[in-house]
Amino acid sequence: MKWMKSLSDCSVAVVGLGLMGASLGGALRGKCARVVGVARRAEVVETALAQRFVDEGTTDLIAGVCDADVVVLSTPVRVIVQQLAEIAPHLRPGCVVMDLGSTKKEIVAAMDHLLPESVQPLGAHPMCGKETSGIEVAEVALYQGRTFILTPLARTSPETVALGVALAEAAGAKPLVLDADRQDYLVGTVSHLPYLLACALVATADATTSKDPAAWKIIAGGFRDTSRVAGSDVQMMLDILMTNREHVLAAVRECETQLRHLSDLVANGDEAMLRDALTTIRNTRKEMFP
Amino acid sequence: MKWMKSLSDCSVAVVGLGLMGASLGGALRGKCARVVGVARRAEVVETALAQRFVDEGTTDLIAGVCDADVVVLSTPVRVIVQQLAEIAPHLRPGCVVMDLGSTKKEIVAAMDHLLPESVQPLGAHPMCGKETSGIEVAEVALYQGRTFILTPLARTSPETVALGVALAEAAGAKPLVLDADRQDYLVGTVSHLPYLLACALVATADATTSKDPAAWKIIAGGFRDTSRVAGSDVQMMLDILMTNREHVLAAVRECETQLRHLSDLVANGDEAMLRDALTTIRNTRKEMFP
Repeated sequence: MKWMKSLSDCSVAVVGLGLMGASLGGALRGKCARVVGVARRAEVVETALAQRFVDEGTTDLIAGVCDADVVVLSTPVRVIVQQLAEIAPHLRPGCVVMDLGSTKKEIVAAMDHLLPESVQPLGAHPMCGKETSGIEVAEVALYQGRTFILTPLARTSPETVALGVALAEAAGAKPLVLDADRQDYLVGTVSHLPYLLACALVATADATTSKDPAAWKIIAGGFRDTSRVAGSDVQMMLDILMTNREHVLAAVRECETQLRHLSDLVANGDEAMLRDALTTIRNTRKEMFP
Repeated sequence: MKWMKSLSDCSVAVVGLGLMGASLGGALRGKCARVVGVARRAEVVETALAQRFVDEGTTDLIAGVCDADVVVLSTPVRVIVQQLAEIAPHLRPGCVVMDLGSTKKEIVAAMDHLLPESVQPLGAHPMCGKETSGIEVAEVALYQGRTFILTPLARTSPETVALGVALAEAAGAKPLVLDADRQDYLVGTVSHLPYLLACALVATADATTSKDPAAWKIIAGGFRDTSRVAGSDVQMMLDILMTNREHVLAAVRECETQLRHLSDLVANGDEAMLRDALTTIRNTRKEMFP
């Protein structure tokens, strides 16, 4: 491919019309030749059409992707891997295949293995998930201002990366090109670890205090915020955890060490060191979210 | 005291004009005879007067409390214990002394030990803290709809409890009478544990990913919410942790066990059990925050 494909000329197929897929379709409509939505359930396709998240819709995966210039797989991580195998023989030469999965190493390996040479692969992970899911909560502004990670493969051409950048920007997001393994390492700590901490917090309250009706009355903002992501879609999170085990477990081990360090300072009544540690942490968080 | 003191006839002294104290003063103004604000710094007293959080103000602790019918100590936990000793000889007979500290066992013990028999003690802990602090963020609506825990002592009369209930309701809060040790156990899990988890999460990111500038771009909503309370005031949290060590450490141990259970399931690739555990947790959280 020596020519530069322009997003405005592309027919984009979005496979999976949940929060991320439907929102992306809606954000891209009018900025590309057409948006075709693919979902398993006819009701979801109808909702996507009625709410103008897509120009056209179908429940037939192959029919939906076979004429597309860009295919965006927006399903749980391991469904993406299955769908890559299913669509591979049916794609146009020159077609760009992207995905929106939260973990990238297994997906880009599957892309490399399953997609024919005539097809261009590009991993992607927009940082705009919510703990709610489904087309009911989709919104065109979802990607606005969010970081949109792109993880090219060795075989991904600069033109394909440029198209991915254009697609992310068309949705209002900020593209960020990263190596797949590096992205998995980083999101293991900044995204998957918070999920497991939130889950452990809810499980702790469930195991100890939740028998006391008073506990439910005194649960305040701190618990609500710290536990929020424990409400995330279980299938989505299972796929994420299972395809990023090494980095997730390393992040958990490091966090256990940090928690043990803080609780040791509490246990020993070592106030000066505890004050220093908590002050450093507070300042770090302020830097993260000024 | 056989007579029932009415809040509307009471002069209320609020000691400490931070987020909680100034907000309470503002919420009670007009619902009691007068609100006297006490703060160490003259600027804070001036701000409290200018913003009508109090009717009168002083930087003199003893002058502020000596004519009060109700004294509400709204300072960090261990400052409360010091102030109880300072004000004890100067209080009116029949005076009710309350506090707003997050841990209650040490405070009610100090109240019992330090306050003369002629003075009525009543511990309190309104569940409306924020990670921000200071009079700058005070607001009259802070207590609206929030649970306002009251922890009476053996010597606290039913009339004093009734006055505490009236004060909480006047501020728009929902009073909840609890044993001091039970409240410390419950908040150890639902409030102090989330703080330490949030701190451990920030420390983990700081120790591992924060050297990579990409990490700062991909920090998304999940990390922000899970880490929010790590921005809490350090002195306030130090006092809380140091006066609730036993319950806080028990909560941390239980949470470590829960986290280890989840991460073992990830490590072993035990998907069926992991799915069950995450589904139960998700449903529990939905029950907590419908």
